[in-house]
Amino acid sequence: MGWGDLGAFGEPSKETPNLDQMASEGMLFLDFYTANPLCSPSRAALLTGRLPVRNGFYTTNAHARNAYTPQDIVGGIPDSELLLPELLKKAGYINKIIGKWHLGHRPQFHPLKHGFDEWFGSPNCHFGPFDNRAFPNIPVYRDWEMIGRYYEDFKIDLKTGEANLTQIYLQEALNFISKQQASQQPFFLYWAIDATHAPVYASKHFLGTSQRGLYGDAVREIDDSVGKILKHLQKLGISENTFVFFTSDNGAALISAPKQGGSNGRFLCGKQTTFEGGMREPAIAWWPGHIPAGGVSHQLGNVMDLFTTSLSLAGLQPPSDRQIDGIDLLPAILQGKLIDRPIFYYRGNEMMAVRVGLYKAHYWTWSNSWEEYSKGIDFCPGQNVSGVTTHTQEEHTTLPLLFHLGRDPGEKYPLSFASDEYQRAMEQISVVVQQHKATMVPGEPQLNVCDKAVMNWSPPGCEKLGKCLKPPKSDPKKCFWPH
Amino acid sequence: MGWGDLGAFGEPSKETPNLDQMASEGMLFLDFYTANPLCSPSRAALLTGRLPVRNGFYTTNAHARNAYTPQDIVGGIPDSELLLPELLKKAGYINKIIGKWHLGHRPQFHPLKHGFDEWFGSPNCHFGPFDNRAFPNIPVYRDWEMIGRYYEDFKIDLKTGEANLTQIYLQEALNFISKQQASQQPFFLYWAIDATHAPVYASKHFLGTSQRGLYGDAVREIDDSVGKILKHLQKLGISENTFVFFTSDNGAALISAPKQGGSNGRFLCGKQTTFEGGMREPAIAWWPGHIPAGGVSHQLGNVMDLFTTSLSLAGLQPPSDRQIDGIDLLPAILQGKLIDRPIFYYRGNEMMAVRVGLYKAHYWTWSNSWEEYSKGIDFCPGQNVSGVTTHTQEEHTTLPLLFHLGRDPGEKYPLSFASDEYQRAMEQISVVVQQHKATMVPGEPQLNVCDKAVMNWSPPGCEKLGKCLKPPKSDPKKCFWPH
Repeated sequence: MGWGDLGAFGEPSKETPNLDQMASEGMLFLDFYTANPLCSPSRAALLTGRLPVRNGFYTTNAHARNAYTPQDIVGGIPDSELLLPELLKKAGYINKIIGKWHLGHRPQFHPLKHGFDEWFGSPNCHFGPFDNRAFPNIPVYRDWEMIGRYYEDFKIDLKTGEANLTQIYLQEALNFISKQQASQQPFFLYWAIDATHAPVYASKHFLGTSQRGLYGDAVREIDDSVGKILKHLQKLGISENTFVFFTSDNGAALISAPKQGGSNGRFLCGKQTTFEGGMREPAIAWWPGHIPAGGVSHQLGNVMDLFTTSLSLAGLQPPSDRQIDGIDLLPAILQGKLIDRPIFYYRGNEMMAVRVGLYKAHYWTWSNSWEEYSKGIDFCPGQNVSGVTTHTQEEHTTLPLLFHLGRDPGEKYPLSFASDEYQRAMEQISVVVQQHKATMVPGEPQLNVCDKAVMNWSPPGCEKLGKCLKPPKSDPKKCFWPH
Repeated sequence: MGWGDLGAFGEPSKETPNLDQMASEGMLFLDFYTANPLCSPSRAALLTGRLPVRNGFYTTNAHARNAYTPQDIVGGIPDSELLLPELLKKAGYINKIIGKWHLGHRPQFHPLKHGFDEWFGSPNCHFGPFDNRAFPNIPVYRDWEMIGRYYEDFKIDLKTGEANLTQIYLQEALNFISKQQASQQPFFLYWAIDATHAPVYASKHFLGTSQRGLYGDAVREIDDSVGKILKHLQKLGISENTFVFFTSDNGAALISAPKQGGSNGRFLCGKQTTFEGGMREPAIAWWPGHIPAGGVSHQLGNVMDLFTTSLSLAGLQPPSDRQIDGIDLLPAILQGKLIDRPIFYYRGNEMMAVRVGLYKAHYWTWSNSWEEYSKGIDFCPGQNVSGVTTHTQEEHTTLPLLFHLGRDPGEKYPLSFASDEYQRAMEQISVVVQQHKATMVPGEPQLNVCDKAVMNWSPPGCEKLGKCLKPPKSDPKKCFWPH
């Protein structure tokens, strides 16, 4: 989902009344970012409070390449990483993940081995259908064991776009919340639904209801579901004791637009890129009785902050034995403070850009390769900013491209290198970047090696279902990451 | 000002709290258009309820060229046109225009000859400063006579961007409203301020207050002024008896961006073009006690509708002796109805495109000429949609380019000519276009002839001020309209 997909963020169909109301009852974050313009690293960053280049969710197979956890990925979240649910346990929280895990699907990476108490969902994207010979269909887990597979037991009709997965995930959330309220135990619910990812789907009730086509139907179903979750909290009388945050893991996938992809509004390019369209996210905080209604924040925020902020809410400190990139947003949320902090835009192993205040400096620019572009893969459809949306990796480390995101949120007008404004801004930014690079200790890259033998052939529980498949012989190879 | 310049429409700095509140207390129109992507024809259409091609505000000097009323224009609003204030007089309304008139500056075109009772403002844009030899500075009128000139008596500091014009226009509005309330006479106030037009200015209090630079300062001053006007109506106890509508005359002038131009959000291109960025406008209706608060309308609306709607509010019928293009929006505003009607996108003498429902068909495409483009004149900076943002005038009358504005508000993905959807939509659209063309009787074009002798050399009142200038000899010529 992209920054521009919600009514509150200017989507011209304005079809998200529940999320818009969530914003009007809570706080809208207009300058909120992901840690990486792709799913897995973004989610790893959210749960560890650390940049993917630290927690291992990146590749060194090639320069500045996005990597994630397809079925044949060998790596996953290292045991050495401390995840938010692991830490929340210390404060008595019960932790549940509903939906897409995406931090590795081999046994040692299972979410219940990393702090979650419950899981309902899948380890990978709902790509498919697969033939269970070259690729197995993705399993759906309840806790330790799979209970079926996408397309087989959990239907997704690619022709009509019908699937009731979001409804299933919604019901799972409502049930969990009810259970926790009844037992009066504090809880952390990570509601990581995989809609609106392509192939896009919505349940029957929502199909054809949006001006925006199937993608809009999926957004409307999410909007409706969030509304139901918030109302459920209110009905149970725990809304003033429950902090809710809504955001996305990367910008809209313009490569799938307009039928299967959303919108990043006026921002440049989309998912996979380190332009604003790839990394600025819709974000809303909600906590009736605590967050002043109708608030708007320009605090530079990041999904990694949800780690630190959640710990703070639970009365916990972040780990002190490692670098944590997320900050505690509570002063911004509850007192309207603005905390000075940079935003780093990474693509794989490279810091592509940095934002300090309203300035954004690009140290590298790249949309994707000419080779990919010539095949019709376009991360910036209809957009072309000369020297900026480049199809070769362009290095600007000695003279970064500088944009003022207040006057030019679309990154169309680089500041003149000769201007006083450029000099003044870069003096400040250079210090931030030097310090960041000087103290950067990259983690061991987890997304370098792929092997078809590690696919979801025989997840735990497959025997009971008669759904175990025979893996091929192990043949580990360097994963190929094209962009 | 563009669709994307207000917080309520997704401007990422969200710096328009008063307009946003106006929207939350009133109704937001998301599909509201101007009748022409340029100032004069748009304003002529608003005040006559008729397309510029009917009321004469167009040129036949060349195909599909935008034209307006610079200082050397010979034409203006014809006497045969019936303007909104002329008609409102019949219902006892006192009519005032504050700001830019732009419907011709020769004596016969004076606003007080066309229904207005009072005028404070200028006949043309605040371009300048001029040297009063080749070009006179633009006069500012109070009613029948000029009271000074821009840059001379009404300061605009082009270096700092400081000018208190919006404050003067605000005070004029507040005074007029107070006077009307005191005399209990119904009134029509056309508050046609010329900010945010380039050269952009703001008063001292607002300079440097926006994240968006000087342009944002100007927007903030307008926002603040609108807030003060609405509060004034409330304080006087007449807000429930006063209908207020906020909109713009054309899309943001991207050619002046980012320092002197605004934003059309996710829409394609800007002012001068018939893409959405040139013609879709921010629009808010406000009438406490009548319009349900927080309303959102997808009614296809047009500035011409303000003519018909205003008449309806005054209990009057539109003239029956001529074609009126504006419709009465009250059923949409008060009862949430959706009235089926097309939007025609004209550029000069040519119908470039039409919108029917969510479909928009381009019969002609043009951004501007290669010659202009090569000089750096770019109406679509950073945007390039192959075969759409063309630099030659491309005719598509036999096979229009079709877009679905719900799925694709940015006009990036023309529908396949071979698709069923294309066939179905075009069948419907063709009927609408045929009917429109068959009944179209163009008015006499007013914007064909230019003559330096007609400039504002010696406006009425100049003698008293010692500000009369000697006009050159009359030398009428065809005006040159490059785009």
